[in-house]
Amino acid sequence: MAKITIIGLGLIGTSLGLALKKSNLPEVILVGHEIEREAAIHASKRGAVDKVEPYLPAAVEDAAMVIIATPVLAIREVLQEIAPHLAEGAIVTDTGSTKRMVLQWAAEFLPPSVSFVGGHPMAGKTESGPDAAEADLFQGVPYCIVGGKDARPEAVEAVVDLVRAIGAVPYFVDAAEHDTYVAAVSHLPIAISAALVTVTARSPSWRELSKLAAGGFRDVSRLAQGDPIMSRDILLTNREAVAHWVDELIKELYSLRNMLIDNPPDLEQRVQDLFYHAWQSRADWVTGEAYKEQDSTPETPQAGPTISRLLMGEWVTRKFEQEQQRDPRRLGQQPSKLKQKGKGWFRR
Amino acid sequence: MAKITIIGLGLIGTSLGLALKKSNLPEVILVGHEIEREAAIHASKRGAVDKVEPYLPAAVEDAAMVIIATPVLAIREVLQEIAPHLAEGAIVTDTGSTKRMVLQWAAEFLPPSVSFVGGHPMAGKTESGPDAAEADLFQGVPYCIVGGKDARPEAVEAVVDLVRAIGAVPYFVDAAEHDTYVAAVSHLPIAISAALVTVTARSPSWRELSKLAAGGFRDVSRLAQGDPIMSRDILLTNREAVAHWVDELIKELYSLRNMLIDNPPDLEQRVQDLFYHAWQSRADWVTGEAYKEQDSTPETPQAGPTISRLLMGEWVTRKFEQEQQRDPRRLGQQPSKLKQKGKGWFRR
Repeated sequence: MAKITIIGLGLIGTSLGLALKKSNLPEVILVGHEIEREAAIHASKRGAVDKVEPYLPAAVEDAAMVIIATPVLAIREVLQEIAPHLAEGAIVTDTGSTKRMVLQWAAEFLPPSVSFVGGHPMAGKTESGPDAAEADLFQGVPYCIVGGKDARPEAVEAVVDLVRAIGAVPYFVDAAEHDTYVAAVSHLPIAISAALVTVTARSPSWRELSKLAAGGFRDVSRLAQGDPIMSRDILLTNREAVAHWVDELIKELYSLRNMLIDNPPDLEQRVQDLFYHAWQSRADWVTGEAYKEQDSTPETPQAGPTISRLLMGEWVTRKFEQEQQRDPRRLGQQPSKLKQKGKGWFRR
Repeated sequence: MAKITIIGLGLIGTSLGLALKKSNLPEVILVGHEIEREAAIHASKRGAVDKVEPYLPAAVEDAAMVIIATPVLAIREVLQEIAPHLAEGAIVTDTGSTKRMVLQWAAEFLPPSVSFVGGHPMAGKTESGPDAAEADLFQGVPYCIVGGKDARPEAVEAVVDLVRAIGAVPYFVDAAEHDTYVAAVSHLPIAISAALVTVTARSPSWRELSKLAAGGFRDVSRLAQGDPIMSRDILLTNREAVAHWVDELIKELYSLRNMLIDNPPDLEQRVQDLFYHAWQSRADWVTGEAYKEQDSTPETPQAGPTISRLLMGEWVTRKFEQEQQRDPRRLGQQPSKLKQKGKGWFRR
């Protein structure tokens, strides 16, 4: 019986246990460790692990594989604490949201006989904790694999097997790339979401504002409801990359803000282009065009009508075409200014 | 038979028709007008209106009430075009996302015998067009009512009746307040969402980034998939208020960015406070505490554990308590710095 130990039975750790159970791996015993007693009980009741071991050294002793599924900063402590108790040849992996510092800590604390392979499933949900866990959380999800510098090839293969067993898709990437990429598409959204809540909730009008907040606010603020410790650890272990992307966003917002204040003659066209570009890029992302087709980049406006029809039905596309053909007498603008519409999106 | 005319059979107009049909208003005939032929056919097939009238003057002729459910800039054109054809004593209302300019246009173009009452249902979804419409879209939703300066009281009452008939909750507000409030909780999220997509999609690494974009990116970018014309019109007719809120967000993001770059000794505590504040404020919003309890403002940290237990189960709360009690040896910081944790959130 090979022993696999999951440290941290929150959303990800418990889901991993459930997914592994569902995969019917033969000859495996799943041991769980969780600092928080009630979470351990919940995870155990849900059948995510065969056994809970509250004493960390005993939990990892003789384990063939140890999966650390805690918030990122706690990974450092866990690595320090388990290092002396790991079996020779053990494989250690994690599910942390950043990888550069985790790999540094692994190199610093783990003995040479142990292989570390970093991991990061691109899965999650707003709810935290073992009760929110799902066996299918990883189905079809990209699972980043970042080999430690001294990881044996068999160790990497074992983690790839684990990833496939839970239904996820292995995605090989180095630690620095990983942290830059996820800073853009995962950590920046977290920062934005918290910032939106912060600025609106500290307004003297919040009581009134909050009554009118609806689906749009709900979507954009959802990540502010994620586990605050997890979010904190992400920012602390990926400071430069997150700061870089926050800068990029500030530049974009500042340019929009100036445009709205300056009110240039072509404002209507510029704001329209901005929203249409964003709409198109997201449509490409949703349909997977952004990475499936070699030549389809968001800078190719001609791709627009086809993809949008595929995705959205004909509605938005038709509205655009109609909008381009219409007699524009809006906001009291001069016809001369509005002739520029003819040079718009679809005719470039 | 009283005639009610809906101009614009997109998501909102068609949903209004379906909701009114469902409400079994007696003695009413619903007439729809839509510039885009196919949308009119779809709305009609779904039974949202009794009759489609492609000629706008005929559509509004003899109507007791006219509901304009187009994007905001188009409301101006519609008001101009229908003005000469409205019956004496007709009530005109709209569903536009901004109200200040709409009320100006109504005062400018409508004859004195007609009452204009602005409206704005705080409902919506990502998908546009009549096929996305739902009879229950307005159930329990706040519906802003902004009386035009010369609107007769009976006209306001009639719009209130309409709002109640479709299951929404009347919310009286003046035009300037409305536009400032929704700039914060509705228009700012739209601007943020588009900006997130813009900066990530124009990155040279977008092809790789986009593969790792998951649920968090999906949530925050969802509004970028809304109808671009609607988003454009919102920003164009609410420029100053949106710019104000974009400024507020930039300030917040800039302060976060500087904090991450400067890496002060209390960074961990500060980032934790930031995420916990945001988490708490959003929890208050979700539970409705932010406006239900007179004394519960987001600045009352003591409210935290109770509300969060109500809302989130015990998980995040327990994690926080545990986090506060833990021996902190993180990121190699000095114990002296980390003693500050004891002064953190729950002990203030």
